[in-house]
Amino acid sequence: MVFQQKIKISTLGRGTSNITRQVNELIQQSGITQGIVNIFVHHTSASLILCENADPTVRSDLEAFMEKITPDGDTLYRHIDEGPDDMSAHVRTVLTDSSLSIPLNHRQCLLGTWQGIYLWEHRTHPHNRSLTITVYGE
Amino acid sequence: MVFQQKIKISTLGRGTSNITRQVNELIQQSGITQGIVNIFVHHTSASLILCENADPTVRSDLEAFMEKITPDGDTLYRHIDEGPDDMSAHVRTVLTDSSLSIPLNHRQCLLGTWQGIYLWEHRTHPHNRSLTITVYGE
Amino acid sequence: MVFQQKIKISTLGRGTSNITRQVNELIQQSGITQGIVNIFVHHTSASLILCENADPTVRSDLEAFMEKITPDGDTLYRHIDEGPDDMSAHVRTVLTDSSLSIPLNHRQCLLGTWQGIYLWEHRTHPHNRSLTITVYGE
Repeated sequence: MVFQQKIKISTLGRGTSNITRQVNELIQQSGITQGIVNIFVHHTSASLILCENADPTVRSDLEAFMEKITPDGDTLYRHIDEGPDDMSAHVRTVLTDSSLSIPLNHRQCLLGTWQGIYLWEHRTHPHNRSLTITVYGE
Repeated sequence: MVFQQKIKISTLGRGTSNITRQVNELIQQSGITQGIVNIFVHHTSASLILCENADPTVRSDLEAFMEKITPDGDTLYRHIDEGPDDMSAHVRTVLTDSSLSIPLNHRQCLLGTWQGIYLWEHRTHPHNRSLTITVYGE
Repeated sequence: MVFQQKIKISTLGRGTSNITRQVNELIQQSGITQGIVNIFVHHTSASLILCENADPTVRSDLEAFMEKITPDGDTLYRHIDEGPDDMSAHVRTVLTDSSLSIPLNHRQCLLGTWQGIYLWEHRTHPHNRSLTITVYGE
């Protein structure tokens, strides 16, 4: 059995959005009780991470880490058409995930206690992001 | 067909454990001959890598690389409640994988000659880590 | 339904090869209309990325980023048997992906407009690389 649905997430600019609830709702809609859910982002400047879901400073520290290793406006980059955050957004996407496969059972993601699924917007301005959620199993 | 099982791995603190044998044993238990095996870690400070399985200095060099780009005790980080290795462990997890999907055939992982599946503990102290192995196919 | 096939890609040394067309051709051969395609590289010094497919400077800037954080010949590394690009190739592989799972529908990958699937050769000399493509769904 395969269940597939596109969703849209509006971001507020650079930062993370917890999408765990949306993913679990789609798993319940799918009727699939055991298998895998795949989450896929259709963009090259926003990505997915599994991250600690309790202390928000984990996500701001991740942002600080990325700013350290791939700062906006780095003169290393030639691809700067869309501004100083253009190429650093592509690098951040490549270092994280465009696709996540998570086991599911009893109609929900088998996440650890401290794991949340986050969409990470890497551009400084707000964007509408498309994702495809595919649930498969039995 | 879907086969799913949780396993526990005890780590000795920061470092890698080769889990290829355990994954192949579960594939054989599953009875599935062709498809995909998904390995998933239920933690945000331990992760998975596919890595060269012959020379152990590859893994110690990877450790040295991580220590260079995200050293323990970096004053950049504010999330330090659990010690100097707390936030660097989260960063190392995000830069590597919480989830790996590997093709299988003839009841074993289709790995290259030099590829091994490693659980990478990023905390300095020993931990008990939970993983879910999901085998699907026919 | 599961369809699995090994393919070979000859690389010209360090750099990226767009393999989107090959992946879509195998999806069409598989007869599967909805599901997931998994692409897997059987090596530890070449990897996969989903990347902007329009401006080639995105890929050269990614190369420049990798050269900055893990330069060839870095004296940090002890695993240097195969030359100055040996260990940096392993690090670049671990920071990117050996395995990519992409949703498919209507017999093709559901990629965003600007997404291409790239094999990234991290060794400076040309290599023959093996990949396994697994298509599953219905």
